[in-house]
Amino acid sequence: MYQYAHGGDIYSDPSLTRNKKLLDYSANINPMGIPAGVRKALIASVSGCVHYPDPFCRELRHGLGEYYSVPESMIYCGNGAADVLFRIMAAIQPKRTLVLAPTFADYEKAALTVGSRMDYFTLREENEFSVTDDILKAITKRTQMVVLCNPNNPTGKLMEKDLLLSVLKHCEGLHIPLLVDECFMDFIEDEKKFSLTDHLSEHPGLIILKAFTKIYAIPGVRLGFCLTSDTALTDKLYASGQDWNVSVLAQAAGVAALKETEYLEESRKLISVERDYLISQLRMIGARVFEGSANYILIRSPHKYPWQEKLKKHNILIRDCSNYRGLSSGFYRLAVRTRRENRKLIKIMKELVKHDFFDYIN
Amino acid sequence: MYQYAHGGDIYSDPSLTRNKKLLDYSANINPMGIPAGVRKALIASVSGCVHYPDPFCRELRHGLGEYYSVPESMIYCGNGAADVLFRIMAAIQPKRTLVLAPTFADYEKAALTVGSRMDYFTLREENEFSVTDDILKAITKRTQMVVLCNPNNPTGKLMEKDLLLSVLKHCEGLHIPLLVDECFMDFIEDEKKFSLTDHLSEHPGLIILKAFTKIYAIPGVRLGFCLTSDTALTDKLYASGQDWNVSVLAQAAGVAALKETEYLEESRKLISVERDYLISQLRMIGARVFEGSANYILIRSPHKYPWQEKLKKHNILIRDCSNYRGLSSGFYRLAVRTRRENRKLIKIMKELVKHDFFDYIN
Repeated sequence: MYQYAHGGDIYSDPSLTRNKKLLDYSANINPMGIPAGVRKALIASVSGCVHYPDPFCRELRHGLGEYYSVPESMIYCGNGAADVLFRIMAAIQPKRTLVLAPTFADYEKAALTVGSRMDYFTLREENEFSVTDDILKAITKRTQMVVLCNPNNPTGKLMEKDLLLSVLKHCEGLHIPLLVDECFMDFIEDEKKFSLTDHLSEHPGLIILKAFTKIYAIPGVRLGFCLTSDTALTDKLYASGQDWNVSVLAQAAGVAALKETEYLEESRKLISVERDYLISQLRMIGARVFEGSANYILIRSPHKYPWQEKLKKHNILIRDCSNYRGLSSGFYRLAVRTRRENRKLIKIMKELVKHDFFDYIN
Repeated sequence: MYQYAHGGDIYSDPSLTRNKKLLDYSANINPMGIPAGVRKALIASVSGCVHYPDPFCRELRHGLGEYYSVPESMIYCGNGAADVLFRIMAAIQPKRTLVLAPTFADYEKAALTVGSRMDYFTLREENEFSVTDDILKAITKRTQMVVLCNPNNPTGKLMEKDLLLSVLKHCEGLHIPLLVDECFMDFIEDEKKFSLTDHLSEHPGLIILKAFTKIYAIPGVRLGFCLTSDTALTDKLYASGQDWNVSVLAQAAGVAALKETEYLEESRKLISVERDYLISQLRMIGARVFEGSANYILIRSPHKYPWQEKLKKHNILIRDCSNYRGLSSGFYRLAVRTRRENRKLIKIMKELVKHDFFDYIN
């Protein structure tokens, strides 16, 4: 039986979907909710669903081109970043792919659909799970593709641009593509310092994966895209699946989202402040916190206290990270949410520590 | 540069999307429009888009299971029937696939993504493009998969159930899967007489492809599914791509659509009456009409009059079928729409015949 292995699975338990009190810390979604303009655009586009969607997402790609100052031909849109990821693997067909460990599981899942062998660059807890220069040695003549996630999921760690550019040059020397998933980069306040979007034109081997899902809080709509100056690759992305993968609704939501500049600024500020708050509070309850830059926090709980199970009883979902390659039981990922919600989470965690934790570990 | 090769492409020409008078006869969509209940469900589900969609479409599959009287485990939902089709090919990986000619182009496109060789069972104009017993001889020991479309697109021709069952048994003897696309079966008044849905349990090699797109007039939403009793195959369908391919909006639309029984009955009646009307009128203007049973009509125009180009000037889109394998210029497909719209279409066609046609062909 096929197994789902991600956060945000509120449907496996019918009591959760009907639960108005549910706080989902297991999915890394902007806690500000769907921007008003996007909500409006979704509703307004319902009538347009009587037509097939534009297979080339022309209006949306035009908007994205302006937003990122790149030609529209460098943009390919899909049914969520995950759809784009599977198409990239289908188009490139790497026989041997290097990924980080731990990282988002679907790079491997997507590579396996085209029969790739996997190599892992294992991130070490003693380095706070940061990517080190050693990765250059891990990319060898046998490597056919490299996938990075920046900031990485579930660690939230950013890679320095210098190291990223070294990896990119190394990949170019080997004539292999480098895919950098920047889906969570939108939450970073000094994004330009870390993103590779300005390096696309001179590096056709570079592919950047992006999503509307997380920053605009619309995972249910499905909208993602990639940026690359390798237009032969974008042609292959179109040929690798159906023509109508991005719904009329998603295209309208995307066009509207690009106008939400204030929402974006507020979101970044909120995440920055609340991440600091959560980090300090989580440390107070005795968790080891891996300080990251994203809208989620990786923690390690001493004595393998079953936080996921315990918090679920209090209507709070968090992500047990024991199924990530390179992690083990005791690791959890928590989204960064609003102060009101974070207070509630911390309050319940503190109560559990006070009344249950020591009974459990003794 | 990647080429789009289907009907309904209203976005390639910006004047079309803004054109309120546009009549789209090029896409085979129910002219009754989006049912009120589905429209309501789409709007109501916008708030739920803050969550990832259910990767297993549990509520929708439950509804479909009841609708088709099959266990939910026999249903797999996707981002439109086209998404399901590409996943089926990825899961089965046929090395040699037999399709009809002419038929919907994406069976071949999907088979080619897994490197399949193609064989074609050529339908003959002298047989009104009907599938004949000869297809049994065309399915040989080298065939690894057979794809049929019933009623076939663009001919509208239904295959008799006896012949279908013979093909199914023949495929079973060769241990190869038979995919039958029944996306347009919903428009058939005596559906049960032609559909293979009652034969799923005892034939695990049978896969039936279905869509909400056409009958509920929601091509822009993206929702399709397949039915098969081969649960090892459905497991592979899940593994062959991303987990969240069906949006929250699409799942809500599907659940609501299954309650639209009156809409369904009215649609079938309308299509039946209007198809007869269009057939008689199209014959009056001198077109050769291939009488089908679907919500579209294939015609052949004498002297290769450029109907598509001429009608576009009158805000009407029709589907030039010259890019279908097995057809040539002069073939067109027209959707069956409402009486008001059909009258307008016929009026303009008659005027063109009267004032332009003979000038053109002389």
